[in-house]
Amino acid sequence: MKYYIEKTLDTNFESAILKTKEALQKEGFGVLSEIDIHKKLKEKLNVDFRKYKILGACNPPLAHQALQIEDKIGTMLPCNVIIFELDDNHVQIAAIDPFASMQVVENDQLNQIAKIVKEKLEKVIAIIN
Amino acid sequence: MKYYIEKTLDTNFESAILKTKEALQKEGFGVLSEIDIHKKLKEKLNVDFRKYKILGACNPPLAHQALQIEDKIGTMLPCNVIIFELDDNHVQIAAIDPFASMQVVENDQLNQIAKIVKEKLEKVIAIIN
Repeated sequence: MKYYIEKTLDTNFESAILKTKEALQKEGFGVLSEIDIHKKLKEKLNVDFRKYKILGACNPPLAHQALQIEDKIGTMLPCNVIIFELDDNHVQIAAIDPFASMQVVENDQLNQIAKIVKEKLEKVIAIIN
Repeated sequence: MKYYIEKTLDTNFESAILKTKEALQKEGFGVLSEIDIHKKLKEKLNVDFRKYKILGACNPPLAHQALQIEDKIGTMLPCNVIIFELDDNHVQIAAIDPFASMQVVENDQLNQIAKIVKEKLEKVIAIIN
């Protein structure tokens, strides 16, 4: 099962991050965490991994609903949107598909919320250009 | 399928967070993100949700391997460990089971790494007391 919603952009890495953050905000997502994988792997392992960022995106009302329905769903929150460099002018963006990834939880009420979040993330990816 | 590894502790919330961080460090996990759900939901929705924290735990060599095998696995990283209050002296801790949650990816090489991480997280939860 495909577990992400993706797009390739003809732009540079930093610009793709800004565009992604703007699109998330427009669709009601805050960014709760930001992890620079390139930097962390350099720091911890001294390896040169490609530019790769993980943004932890959260829609507060939907997160609140999900947490009330499934108390341990925080193990799968926030919804990650990743941005990584393909080359100087091409960047890949991918958001987790929470409807796919949360199937393992086997909670029908949660599935309904995950579907709404998936549709919102599809919109986020669609409006980035 | 159960998607987490859990334990209930007879302690308070702040002490459980410290114990969890110590255990993660002992097993080779860094904490890359820390999200205070209680605070965020108060801030954004003005609701009084229970004390609930999400720690984003990462074992750098295993994360590096996973990212080389499956370029979009960042949508499921880091591995979350949640801590939430049941009452003043009881706290629930749960780590994501990456072997369960990453089944949706359908990548056998990734599954092997996810199994190693699962075993490490089981150890983390086991040594917290």
